[in-house]
This record gives sequence, C-alpha cells and structure tokens, in this order.
Amino acid sequence: MTLGDLLSGPPAVVAAGVDVFSASLRAQGADVHDVDWRPPGFGDPADLAALVLDPRRATANRTAVERVLAAGSVLTDVRPAREVLGLADRTILHAGPPIAWADASGPLRGGLIGATLFEGWASTVEEAERLLAAGEIALDPCHHHSAVGPMAGVTSPSMWMWCLEDPVQGGRAYCNLNEGLGKVLRMGAFNDEVLTRLAWMRDVLGPVLAEAVRSMAEPLDAKAVLAQMLQMGDEGHNRNRAGSLMALRELSPAVVGLAESSGRATSDLAAVLRFIGGNEHFFLNLGMPTAKLAMDAARGVPGSTMVTVMSRNGTEFGIQTAGTGDRWFTGPAQTPVGLFLGDYGPDDANPDIGDSAIMETYGVGGFSMAAAPAIVRFVGGTVPDALATTERMYQLTLAENPAMAIPILGFRGSPTGIDVVSVARTGWLPQINTGMAGRVAGTGQVGAGLVQPPQECFEQALAALAEEARA
Amino acid sequence: MTLGDLLSGPPAVVAAGVDVFSASLRAQGADVHDVDWRPPGFGDPADLAALVLDPRRATANRTAVERVLAAGSVLTDVRPAREVLGLADRTILHAGPPIAWADASGPLRGGLIGATLFEGWASTVEEAERLLAAGEIALDPCHHHSAVGPMAGVTSPSMWMWCLEDPVQGGRAYCNLNEGLGKVLRMGAFNDEVLTRLAWMRDVLGPVLAEAVRSMAEPLDAKAVLAQMLQMGDEGHNRNRAGSLMALRELSPAVVGLAESSGRATSDLAAVLRFIGGNEHFFLNLGMPTAKLAMDAARGVPGSTMVTVMSRNGTEFGIQTAGTGDRWFTGPAQTPVGLFLGDYGPDDANPDIGDSAIMETYGVGGFSMAAAPAIVRFVGGTVPDALATTERMYQLTLAENPAMAIPILGFRGSPTGIDVVSVARTGWLPQINTGMAGRVAGTGQVGAGLVQPPQECFEQALAALAEEARA
Repeated sequence: MTLGDLLSGPPAVVAAGVDVFSASLRAQGADVHDVDWRPPGFGDPADLAALVLDPRRATANRTAVERVLAAGSVLTDVRPAREVLGLADRTILHAGPPIAWADASGPLRGGLIGATLFEGWASTVEEAERLLAAGEIALDPCHHHSAVGPMAGVTSPSMWMWCLEDPVQGGRAYCNLNEGLGKVLRMGAFNDEVLTRLAWMRDVLGPVLAEAVRSMAEPLDAKAVLAQMLQMGDEGHNRNRAGSLMALRELSPAVVGLAESSGRATSDLAAVLRFIGGNEHFFLNLGMPTAKLAMDAARGVPGSTMVTVMSRNGTEFGIQTAGTGDRWFTGPAQTPVGLFLGDYGPDDANPDIGDSAIMETYGVGGFSMAAAPAIVRFVGGTVPDALATTERMYQLTLAENPAMAIPILGFRGSPTGIDVVSVARTGWLPQINTGMAGRVAGTGQVGAGLVQPPQECFEQALAALAEEARA
Repeated sequence: MTLGDLLSGPPAVVAAGVDVFSASLRAQGADVHDVDWRPPGFGDPADLAALVLDPRRATANRTAVERVLAAGSVLTDVRPAREVLGLADRTILHAGPPIAWADASGPLRGGLIGATLFEGWASTVEEAERLLAAGEIALDPCHHHSAVGPMAGVTSPSMWMWCLEDPVQGGRAYCNLNEGLGKVLRMGAFNDEVLTRLAWMRDVLGPVLAEAVRSMAEPLDAKAVLAQMLQMGDEGHNRNRAGSLMALRELSPAVVGLAESSGRATSDLAAVLRFIGGNEHFFLNLGMPTAKLAMDAARGVPGSTMVTVMSRNGTEFGIQTAGTGDRWFTGPAQTPVGLFLGDYGPDDANPDIGDSAIMETYGVGGFSMAAAPAIVRFVGGTVPDALATTERMYQLTLAENPAMAIPILGFRGSPTGIDVVSVARTGWLPQINTGMAGRVAGTGQVGAGLVQPPQECFEQALAALAEEARA
C-alpha cells in the first residue's frame, strides 16, 4: 500500500477508549473497529514500591477517606465575598491552581475583565485589561480561601457567597451564586447582559437568598440533596436538574415569607423563584462546596495518597493530595471532547477550566455518570459508556460512598477517594465531565463534554509522595 | 419421602416470575431455585384467529396508538368538581368500574364515608354509612365523567379538580388534588386529620392554585413534565418526585404573585408551597389526567384491540378497549405484593384499587420502571427486575412512545398501547406498580407493591372483540 492508497481510499479506523470518538466516526460513514484497550501504567517503579511498602499508607488512606465519607454539609448563610473570604482590596479569586494574567486563557481573562468592570475598578474593557496586566488587581485561587468556583471561578468582593458548614468535622466552604447557562461570567462573557445580571444578583438575588436562608427553621442539608439527586438522574456536575428543583423546594416557602416579614416587592420574590426555577445548574454552586467540605476534611493526612483537589484554571490542571497538603501538582489542561451548542465546534473550545472537578474528586460527577444516563445527551458519549465509566472509576478509588448510592448499580455507593497509586498502576485517569467555555474571551459557553487530567499531575504527585514516604 | 419429611425439613423452593418472592424467601434462609418460566398463552383459538384475520385490525390499532402518541396535555384551570363534572346532587365518583356500596371494600367505603362527612351530608360515621347503604348517595365511576382518581378515587362536589386539555385533539380530563401519603381519604382514612386537610384543600389550596393557574402566562405542559420525569428517575405512577418538583417550579412564581394581586396572606401562600414541596406524589394527579387524555383520544376505534382503560375499584379490576367503547371487562382485583409501611404486613393490604393504572395503560408507571430503578425501594423487587419488566412490556404493546424516552435503554420510547391479542398470545399480563390501602376502612396507606390484572378481563375483552370482528 502506498501513501496515495492510504489517502484516496476510505479510512479504516481502530478506536479505543470512550466510544464518543468511534460513534462520531461511524456517523460519518467510517469503518471503525473498537478494541478493548487499556493504557499502560506509569510512574517510577521505585516510587511505587516506596509507597506500597510505606507502613503508614493503608491507615492514612483509610483515615482520609473516612473523613470524606463522614463529612456533612449544611447551608448556614449567604454573604458577600468581601465579608466571608477575607479578600484584600482589588483581589479576584479564580478557579484552579495559581496563575498570572499573562498565562490566563480567554475565558479566565474574560471573567477577570468582567469582574473588574462589575466592581467598578475600571470603566472600560481596555482599562480593565491594563489594570490586570499590570498586576494592579491581585489574583488568587478560590481553593486558597476555602472556596470553589465553577468554570473561570471568578469571584470578586461584591458577589454573594453560599456559606456551608460541615456539622460533623466543623469545616467551612464557600461558593458564589450560579448565573445560569450561555453568556455568563464564569464562561468568560462580560457584555452588558452579563453585567446587568450580576448587578441584579448583587442587589436582589443575594439579599433575598440571605434573608430567606436566615429565616429557615431547618437549614438546607446540601449533602442530603446531593444524595437524593443520584436517585433522580443527576450526577451533580453537569446534571443538577433535580438538585436545583430541590433547592427551590427548600427555599421557596422562606422566599414567599419575605413578602410580609421584609416588605420586599413580590415582583422581586417571583423573579427570584423564576431565576432559580429557570436554571438547571443552580444547585452546582451548592454541590461544589459540599464536595469541598468533604475533601478539605481529609487535608493533611501524612502518608495518604488520596487526591483532595482536582482543579483547572484553563491553562493548567492541578491536583493536591491528602499526604502533601497545599502543594499543587500541575500539567497542561486538556481540551474536552463532547457536544457543542449552536454553531460552535471543537476549534471554539478552551482547554479544561474550573474548580468543579471537585465533584469527581468527591466521587460524583463523571465518576457517577451511571446514575445519570441522560447526561450523555449533554456531554456526549453513549449510555453504556456512562455505565462503563463509573465501573472503571471503582478501580481508582479507595471506598464506595454509601450516602451516594447509584440505583442502577443496585444502589452501590459512588467510587470515592482517588488513590494516586491506583491511577499510576492502572494507567486509567479520572473521568471528568465538564462545561466548555469559548476559547476567546467574551464568548461564553460553547458546549459540554468529557475530559481527563494530564498524566503529569499524577506523575509529580507520585514522586512527591514517594519522596515524603522515604524521608 | 413422606409427608412428615416434607414438613420437618427445610423447604426447597422453585420460584418463577418477579424475584421479589424468591428474594423474600432467600432472606428467610430458604433454598430457592429460580426458573426462567413463562406463562401459557390463553384465549379461544377461534377468537384469536378471528382477530388476527380481521382486515381492520392493523389499521385500527395504528390509528388508536397514533392518537395516544399525538395527545398533548396542558393545565388550563382548577375548579370545583361540581362545576366541571356535571355531578348531580349527592353523587360521589370513585375509581374503577361501577360498584355498589354492598360490594365495596374497606378503603372505598372509608373514602365514601369521609366524602359524605366532608360534604356535610352526614354528621356521624353511622349516618354516612346508613345513607350510603340505602343508596341515598349515588356512586359513579370517575371514568364515566372524563375523570380519574388515584386509589379509592373518591371525588365529591366540593373538591377542586385539575382541568387539563389535549390541545392536539381537543379532549378534556379531570383529577382531584393529591392529599399526600399516609392517612388520606384516597387510602380509605376519614378521621379528623383527613377531614381537616380536605377542608384546607377546599378553602386554601384549591382557590390559591386556581388563581395561580389562571395567572400563568404559559400554561403548565403536563405531558412535557411527564416526559422529563422519565429522564429524572420517576416512572410517573409511584415515583413522582421530580414531577412534583417541576410542578412546584412552574406554579411557585404565580403563587408568590398572589401576595400582591389577590391580597392573600403570605402565610397561606407559604403553606401552599410547603404542601406541594412536601408531597412527592403531588404530580400524580396531573400525570393521571394526562394519560387519560391520551387514552380517551383512542376511544371508539372499531376493530382496534388496544386497551384504553385499566382500573380497579378495590373489588374488581376493569378494562376497556378502543374497539369496544365504554364496555367494561372485569375480574376480581388481585392483592399487590411489595413493601409495607411501619408494622403493616400482607394481611393488612386491600386488593388492588385506583384509576392510577391509567399510567400503565399509557406506557409509563410499571411499564417504564427501567427509567426509575430507585422505585424498587418503594414497591419491592430488584433493579434487574425493574429493567426486565420494561423489556417484557414491549412484547405486549403496539408502539414505543418517542416522547417518553427511557435513558438507560438508550432513550428507547416507553412501551405504549397494550394489545389484547399480544397479552393473550404471550400469556404475560401488564405489570402495574401501585400503592396499597389498608383492608379495613379508616386505615390509610399500608404499603406499595406490584400487581397484575386478572386474566379474566383480557379473556372477556378478547371474546367481545372477536365477536365484534365476526359481526
């Protein structure tokens, strides 16, 4: 066969891994053969041996994952970021590991520009860019402030934050309010529509939610909602439909009560209920701090090889482990593969971005796609692939979370607590499902899909954990 | 082996059919062998031949099921039964085929007593029983008034009715408001708690919902909600969690709006939202008229062997078919097998009761349990059994409803339009999941489970359809 033959005839394709690739090729008429391939393991054998022989590891991992499983999450308040996050003036938080403006991708830049305009620190896009480029506005990861933010994760002092507490182990975690889909700040959009919505969220939504939450006799149990979501076809990362409706159910009587107790215009209250009811991702920003509380409970367990953070800033993917504290292990963020909105296509997608992979770190999201077969209509792939993904994640994880039961698997608990050693040995990387932001600042959401962390993160973590084990 | 051996040794059991039986025996330590058994077909071969050879049948069944699939369902109003059902004075509607007081089971009697007290036609239980026994209060099936009612289905003139319309084919259907679980009229309870709740529903819930529904810019699309429920782990009969939350989402902004427009006390409005949010079966009474609209659209198609009604009055199970109009084919109602609340057990359960089998007639409920694996925690059985049940129902039905897609089956449409001929040929009976009312009037709900119609209904329908085909 000559090169000419290869290019002129129809392609013959051998595909391995998620079948979204082969399905897409088949749809274009290609002849595709799927093979049951698995990746080679990785990591220095000496490092792996050091970790496997570390006498602390089994106990440390059990301690770490038990803290994760034990953690609760209740909604205690809604307050402005400036009050609860201890933000210095002119500081903006963002998703993922630390990053400077110069290295920021389009959607993170878009979010930072939008927040700078929203806070009134600049009155034009050019002025905002100049301030940000000059370092006159400080950038800091959400994760450094007990916070998480979906997508760009951009959080500025005037934004209202969900405040959650772990009543079992006493942790606290924070997340801003979800704006909805499409042209939104977290996807890198910053036009008037975005800024107008943010102002309404600051002036109406936030205060109403704060008053409502404070007036509730029983606080909203976000962990219980997340558990119930898995019984209702949500996986808690890119399907939050049932969760958002349950949040509405919990909040709506308190919101109605404000008509009398606070004298708020009922048109504002109805608008708040309509906003919540119209946003299928509303609960994501309550689910993420719930997962954050659980993972932070396992922070700092010497000898544990369990992952406590997976997070992306749009340029780099970063992880942290229970045995290595606050240290980041990073690699280049991959670009998700999935389904696109409207006329957008793969060229429009930014590399992976957001703190929302905290859901997979906790064992839901991509790890529990078996509970949410309808998610494939949003992130791509097939129903059997969703089931197979969850089955595969059990090979990487330390425990099954009995609180997060997956009905279709006979109520098996979600695969929870990623073990760096298991990832290296199997060569399987954690499966994340995610929104896709437009590559160009200002675009907004272009789709949703599937993505994995770069192997480098785990290689570095493995080496660092081994070094610590030998010390 | 002697009889003595048989009684003194441990039992050896061979089990066929739903594995709730064998699972229960295994739990008690019995040695159980499951066999892949299927029932024999039934029906006079001459009748079957007459129907199979009837040249009208294929076209008639296609017409019937296409009307079912085409039917829509929007909520247009909420009004008292006396206004919309054309009830004569001192008339009470009930579930299932026609029945007299003398033949009524405990829960139907309990519901009728409660409604008689609620309407003020009697002031004591004894007086109510005397009036009912004397025939001074007329009884009529809901199905004879374009209505449906869950469990006892007891509907009296002062009860508020959901009013739904099929915008495609113009039908109308009605259902009262769901009271919640436990001690409720539809389960045969009639104590003060029940009557107090019914009074609140008459004086607050009904009027508020009526005003809210009339103020909505877009009417609630009950068919769209039902379709979405199957994506969210509900099957629409005994799981209505997502549906009830979606109803709350649609109604809550309008309810809040009443604080200003109608001057209603916000405490009443908050109570309404709390009542809806606290009742996971709230949507059932919107789903049932949605199914009723679809099945009534296929009423009266000569030559069609499709079932249009399956319904039970607690004593008899009745079906109707598209080819035989309003004629009932009845047999003794079976007692469901399933899970019990609190200390209740099988001896406390009344035979099958309720118009709610209209959900299975439409292809959801028991027919779509594959969409709702978590239902097995409520009605019994196992997750594989739920999947197998849906697979089996495809053998009895004429079409797959593309609007009611089941994600775990690769978005296959629900099995819709039961063909009497297929039931007779396969010997499989339609699978219904259902609530269980207490056998004794006044008890309320005792559990939920699985049940099938008696074969007699289908034998009679087959004979009548064959007779009509020969005529």
